[in-house]
Order: sequence, then structure tokens, then C-alpha cells
Amino acid sequence: MKIAVYPGSFDPITNGHLDIVRRAAQMFDRVIVAVAVNDAKAPLFTVDERVQLVAEAVKGLRTVSVDEFDGLLVEYARRKRASVVVRGLRAVSDFEFEFQLALMNRKLDSGIETIFLMTKDEYTFISSRQVKEICQLGANVSDFVPRGVERAMRGKFGSKRLG
Amino acid sequence: MKIAVYPGSFDPITNGHLDIVRRAAQMFDRVIVAVAVNDAKAPLFTVDERVQLVAEAVKGLRTVSVDEFDGLLVEYARRKRASVVVRGLRAVSDFEFEFQLALMNRKLDSGIETIFLMTKDEYTFISSRQVKEICQLGANVSDFVPRGVERAMRGKFGSKRLG
Amino acid sequence: MKIAVYPGSFDPITNGHLDIVRRAAQMFDRVIVAVAVNDAKAPLFTVDERVQLVAEAVKGLRTVSVDEFDGLLVEYARRKRASVVVRGLRAVSDFEFEFQLALMNRKLDSGIETIFLMTKDEYTFISSRQVKEICQLGANVSDFVPRGVERAMRGKFGSKRLG
Amino acid sequence: MKIAVYPGSFDPITNGHLDIVRRAAQMFDRVIVAVAVNDAKAPLFTVDERVQLVAEAVKGLRTVSVDEFDGLLVEYARRKRASVVVRGLRAVSDFEFEFQLALMNRKLDSGIETIFLMTKDEYTFISSRQVKEICQLGANVSDFVPRGVERAMRGKFGSKRLG
Amino acid sequence: MKIAVYPGSFDPITNGHLDIVRRAAQMFDRVIVAVAVNDAKAPLFTVDERVQLVAEAVKGLRTVSVDEFDGLLVEYARRKRASVVVRGLRAVSDFEFEFQLALMNRKLDSGIETIFLMTKDEYTFISSRQVKEICQLGANVSDFVPRGVERAMRGKFGSKRLG
Amino acid sequence: MKIAVYPGSFDPITNGHLDIVRRAAQMFDRVIVAVAVNDAKAPLFTVDERVQLVAEAVKGLRTVSVDEFDGLLVEYARRKRASVVVRGLRAVSDFEFEFQLALMNRKLDSGIETIFLMTKDEYTFISSRQVKEICQLGANVSDFVPRGVERAMRGKFGSKRLG
Repeated sequence: MKIAVYPGSFDPITNGHLDIVRRAAQMFDRVIVAVAVNDAKAPLFTVDERVQLVAEAVKGLRTVSVDEFDGLLVEYARRKRASVVVRGLRAVSDFEFEFQLALMNRKLDSGIETIFLMTKDEYTFISSRQVKEICQLGANVSDFVPRGVERAMRGKFGSKRLG
Repeated sequence: MKIAVYPGSFDPITNGHLDIVRRAAQMFDRVIVAVAVNDAKAPLFTVDERVQLVAEAVKGLRTVSVDEFDGLLVEYARRKRASVVVRGLRAVSDFEFEFQLALMNRKLDSGIETIFLMTKDEYTFISSRQVKEICQLGANVSDFVPRGVERAMRGKFGSKRLG
Repeated sequence: MKIAVYPGSFDPITNGHLDIVRRAAQMFDRVIVAVAVNDAKAPLFTVDERVQLVAEAVKGLRTVSVDEFDGLLVEYARRKRASVVVRGLRAVSDFEFEFQLALMNRKLDSGIETIFLMTKDEYTFISSRQVKEICQLGANVSDFVPRGVERAMRGKFGSKRLG
Repeated sequence: MKIAVYPGSFDPITNGHLDIVRRAAQMFDRVIVAVAVNDAKAPLFTVDERVQLVAEAVKGLRTVSVDEFDGLLVEYARRKRASVVVRGLRAVSDFEFEFQLALMNRKLDSGIETIFLMTKDEYTFISSRQVKEICQLGANVSDFVPRGVERAMRGKFGSKRLG
Repeated sequence: MKIAVYPGSFDPITNGHLDIVRRAAQMFDRVIVAVAVNDAKAPLFTVDERVQLVAEAVKGLRTVSVDEFDGLLVEYARRKRASVVVRGLRAVSDFEFEFQLALMNRKLDSGIETIFLMTKDEYTFISSRQVKEICQLGANVSDFVPRGVERAMRGKFGSKRLG
Repeated sequence: MKIAVYPGSFDPITNGHLDIVRRAAQMFDRVIVAVAVNDAKAPLFTVDERVQLVAEAVKGLRTVSVDEFDGLLVEYARRKRASVVVRGLRAVSDFEFEFQLALMNRKLDSGIETIFLMTKDEYTFISSRQVKEICQLGANVSDFVPRGVERAMRGKFGSKRLG
């Protein structure tokens, strides 16, 4: 059984992330969305909130689960008996950072392979950071995030829906 | 009448920025240099100071005005009846970030077009951040910023002119 | 009156090119699509065919015309009283090549400004070269090029439409 | 059963390619190394020779087979009941080209997913083209290609092994 | 006599840095490793500690010395009678930042030349930041930094060596 | 004595190349400009002409000589007792290609070091290829190449000087 881990801060999960989750789910027997406890500085959502928002968003996908993790990714993966780490790529700058991370992880544990999937083209411009910024400024973000995430963000920002 | 907005933090305006303003002024009927209120973290100059420094620098250009703005850029542009957002490009990394921003803005309001102009080659290495860093270290920055900006920066840093 | 030139080999024109033409047409008073006579090595279509395919594709756009050109772009632009050269950007590698070209053109004639527009995200992966390659292999290219271009390409390749 | 296709011109197969084959073999039930008939212009080796050199190089890997293919990659993959296309990435410029190809393939058949694996760091500078160039100049290429490939290249070039 | 300065924050020095030091030492008569006092925000090690760790790591190299510096790099170099600034490159993103810095330095003092050396391929994925992150998470970093640095980092983090 | 080789096709030498030659000459005891016999496909100038044009351009620089070379660069460098290969960088895409070449050369002979120098900013947009293209179209190229090269190119193209 091939198990894949999809790690990230998911602060919050976007439609771009969800697209990657769905692709990975078709490729591997199980996919664990692993929310990093310490990754984001000054996150908008707590780890519990982030895990909860992911759980809602993936609840229709039977082979996908959500978890939080702390510490070294490769050790977490090993503990979960996962042999694959999944990362989404959106742009050239992503690529370089991701590449260095993956090389480092391979050095730390050569038994765990990193694979890269492309984000669907219409999601290439969505990052959690940008979504938060424009939501805070009052923009409608319903095209970019799942419905539950939009509601939660508006709760945080106290912002009203435009138009 | 074609109105263009040239947004940025302008903390402070540099000769590279001014070069873009002049090019845009030859292409559109009116250009608004829009100083972002919240953009820079821990800016060196207050918004009022930044607006003031831009105003001095562009005062010879009759179709160029300066303003401050807050909130979503596309909404600001719409309010000003601008249909074009102007951005300067200096390097590949600029390009990628700018591209994502522009795609996001297009998604938010498809009636507002982003265009990119090239910074003149001798200005490719000037960024507001670098100018501030070397001015603080005591370097002569008169080649990189308008005279008024240089004076204002030396005021902030209490630095003396070299040589 | 602001006149813009949009130069290229257009061998053949794609939906990505058309998207740029439409955006430019909203920004300038007149747009000339200028088909380069010598640009492509071993082009699939002759210059006359390429001009013809562009003409068909832009015939609904009243301020857009098509022309062929030979020689230096800046001289052609000057002769047409155009002050702007429009180029579409799809990717980082485009950007670098385009930037060098634009700097060269500015050096040759500083009165002619190059501006860059972003290709719509769904067209980022379309290049004339790729469209020709997959059409030759028998793929359906109706999403990527205007109808007349598809017909002309199938004529060249003698290929049948898939399913 | 998950079947993956690893397409390329393999003119000739290098140690970098082999590294990707081995990684993919650990991830999927079957891997087909698919030698493109028409891909390389003026290849050094014929398709039959290229297939033969791959076959020798992968003969220890039980779930890996080699084949040649012609025409659209996505159709070939579909015919082989493969749902994954594997590509190796070495550098930023690879990335951009590969990304466009993968987006195009996804558009042509959304049921076939492209994944990217990183080439091992010591192989990042090996390309078939470079290996051919330096072998032709008489350099020892035994670190870069399997033994059989080295022999075959020296046969083609009539070159003697250095020192 | 050709003197080269190799500036950086060295928080802490890694095997990748050491590789650059050794290469530079073969090329110039003297190499000064110059630890920047103010460069890193919230450094892990004090300037004194960083200088000490470099000193230990380079003690076998007779023509290499270590120093700390503050203020403008070009002025420091001039004071030390150095005519060359050495920088290591690991990746494309490094390159762009470094290029801008070097252009700025050239503008400030055209008598001081910046040269770039490539980091050895097995070190391309090592940055001080990444080494600190994974050491803090408990990973074995003995492949990435000199022995003394490893010990010092474990002291800071209070971490135990894995396996 | 430190000897450096500066290899290239120099078809023809440009002011950008000359700038690199001058910088290298200040850094090393001797610099050999090494014109590659086979490098350019369908060169405009023969090897003899290219060597001749370089010789004219560098004749004021006492420690610089010109030579032609064939075969592996590292072997040529070794034969000339050079320990340094100099390359100029103009752009990100240059960088990647150059990096792979340098890594390959290091693998072939670790005793020969490649260093990179930045092209002066006003020359970043000059390549031999672009200069040839615009000269053939009749443009004035006197800002981009030495006087002798301009004369030789006009001879080849039979073109008249503009204005």
C-alpha cells in the first residue's frame, strides 16, 4: 500500500491545495494532509482551526485524512509508513525552494521520495497569503477557497461580503 | 481619456520609479502615483512624507498627480476611473511576483488591465530597500534618488554625506 | 492618437495572441498586428497566409489592422507613427528574452516604448510551436486557435480531426 | 495497478535517467520507458539502438520495460493503460518547459497525470547533449552513462578512451 | 598581492561556505572571511561566536583569516586593500539577488570587483537557515557543517544527536 | 603566476566581451581569450577572422593574448597552465547554462576553477547574435562593438551605415 503525505501550513487551505489533494488521491492508496504546527509565523488560524477547515474540505474523499505534525517531516512520514511526500508547484520560485527542501529531505532519509504535481492553471495565482490579504481588504474570495474557509476568514476579519 | 495608476509603497521614491512615471506619462492622458498606506512594514517615511517626496519629484510633469490609497487596488483604480495599472519590472523575481498579483487583480476586476514597463538599465539595481540600507551606512546615494529624497533620508538617519 | 504595434511571426496566430490583441485594442487608439517576414525559420505558413489568418481572426475588431513588416522593428514602428510596441508574456523565459529585445529597441530608438501584457492564464501553455506539433500528431486543437487557423493547419498536415 | 510512462528521446540514456527510472519503479507497479521515435533532431543513435541501450541498462529492474512510441504522448499512455507520466527535473529551465508540456497534456487528456521527480544532485549537470559533446571531444564519460552506452558512443565517435 | 574578501553573516559557517573559502584560497594570495555584524536579523550566534566558529573551521588554511565588519562592504574592502569580493552561488534566486548587490557595489566603488564561484553540487541544498531549522528539529547535521559548528548548535538548541 | 582563459565563440567580439576581458586582466597575471573553433554553427566570421578581430580589440592590453582552441576546454586550459576559466554573466538564463557547463568542467578536471564576472549593466542586452541581427537589418551598431568589428560586419552584410 502506497501512502503519501501532503505537508503544509494550510493557513487556510485553498482551492489550489484541494486540487493537489484530489490528484494525489487518484495516484496513491492513502493521502494524509499534514498540517505543520510551527510552520507559519503568526498564522491567522490556530492549528486546530486549520485541521478542522481541511477536514471539512476533504470530507468527500474517502482515502484522504488530515493530521497535524511537528518536527522533522521525514520522521513524521516514516512513522506514518508513508514513502512519498507530495508538493504542489505553482511557479518558478516555488520550484527552487521546493527543490532545496526535497534534496535536504532525501539526504535525511533516502527512503522517502518527494514528487511534484502541478497546480491547475486557474489556481496558479492563489496563495494562502494573497487570499488572506485580499479577504482582509474586503474582496470576495469565494472563487479561491472552499465555502467553509471563506466563512471562517470573514469571521476572523469581521469583513462583509462585497456586492 | 486613459487614466493609469502607478501603485507602490514609494518608501522613498527612487530615480528608477521616476523613470517609470515619465514613460507612463507619455503613454496615457493622466497618471496617478498611488502611495500605499499599509504596504511597507515599518516604513522609514510616513505616508504623508512619502506623498510629499513624490509630489516634489513629479512637480514638473503636468499630467501626473500623487495620491495615497488604502484597501484593494482594483477598487481604488475603479473609483479613479483608471483602466490601467502600471508596474515597473527590474528582474526575473520581480516578474513572477508581479505576474501573480496582476492575475489576481484581473480575477477581481477584469476591466482593469495591468501593463509592465521596463526600468531603464542603469536603474535595474536600485530598490528602495537597497537605497535605504546603503544610505544608513553612510554611502552617497545622489545617483539613485531625487535630491529632496536624499536630504530627507539623511535627516532620518542623521548621516553625513561622504567625500 | 496612440498607435501600438504588436509584432510577431504568428505562424499561426493562436487564441493567446488574440487575447493580447483584444487587450491592447482597449488601451490604444489603433493596433497594428505586424507579421514578421523573416522571423520564423522554416515557417509552416507563408507570410501571405499568416497575414490572411490574422485578418480573419481580428475582423470583428474595428481599430485593429494587420500588416507585414521586414527589417528593424523600431523603424517600422516609426514609419507607422506608432509609439508603443506591445508584447505578450507567458513565462519567465519569455520575459528574459523579451527584456533584452526591448532594451535593444530602446537603445535603437528611445522614442518607442515597449509594454508587456500578461497572457490570460488559460493560454499560458499555448505557443505556436506546440500547437503545430500536436496538430501534426493528430490532436484536436480547437481550444487553442481560431477556427480558420485550425482548418488551415489541418490542410497543411493532411490530418484528420480526432473523435 | 498503477502504470507509469517515462517518455524521452534517450539519445542515449544517462545515469541521471536511470536514477529517475529507479525512483519511479519504487513508486508504481509498472514503469514503461518510452523512447520517442521523432523527438530528437539528427539523433546520434537510431530508435532501435536507443531502445536496446535502455533495455540493457534496466534489465535488473523487473517491473520496468522499454518501448518506443510515436505520436501524441497522452494517447500512447492511454493505450498502455498508464495514468501517470513521469518526468525528471534538473534545473529551472527544465521546469518551465516541462510545466508547459504537462499543462498541454492535461488539457489533451485530464485523466493522465504528470509527476515530477528530482534528479539526484550529482546528476544535475548531465544531459544527453552534454555527454555526447564531451565524449566526441575525447573525454572519459564513464561517470555519466552506463557502461554499454559508453561503449556504443565510442563506437559512433571512433574515439579512444583518455588516460 | 591580490586580496579577496568573502563577506557573509555565517550564522553559522557551513561546509558549503568552507568549500568556497578553499577555492578562493587557491586563486588569491590572501582571503579574508568577513563576518557581517548587522546582517542577520535575530542571529542564532553572536558575532563573536560566529567569528570563533569560522576561525576554527579555517585554521588549517594559512592564507585565510577571519574578521568582522560593519558598514559598507566596499569601504571595508578598500580599507583592507582587497580588490576582489567573493560570493558563492547555489541557485538561480541567489544569482539575482547577488547580481543586484554586486552592481550596487560596483557603482559605489568601481575599483572593487565581485566574482562568483559555484558551490560544489553536493552542497547546493545547504543554507545556514535550513541547517539551523533541521538541527533544531533534532536531525543529524554532521554532513552539512564542520564538527565544531555542530557542537555549538546542539549547545544552543539543547538538542540530542539522533541515532 | 595565475593564468586565466576566457573561452567563447566571439562571432564577433562585442563591447560586453571586452568589458569582461578588462576586468579579468586586473585580476590575473595573464588572460588568454580563447576562440572556439567549432562552437558556433554557421558562424558569420571564420576562426581566423574572429581571432583577428579580438587581437585588434585587445591590442592595448599587455597581459592579454588571443588564441584559438579545439576540443575539451579543460584540456586546453591545462595545456596553457591556466587554473581559472572566466565567464561573463548577463542574465538568469545564461547563469543556468553556464552553471551546468562549469559543473561538468569541474567533474572533468577539478584543478580548474570557473569564475563568473558580471557584464557591465549597459552591456547586459548585447549578444553577438543580436548585434549581427540588427546590423544585417541596417542599424548602427557602433555603441555595441569595437570599431573594427563594425567595419568587418558591414563588409559581410554589404550594409550602409544609417543616418
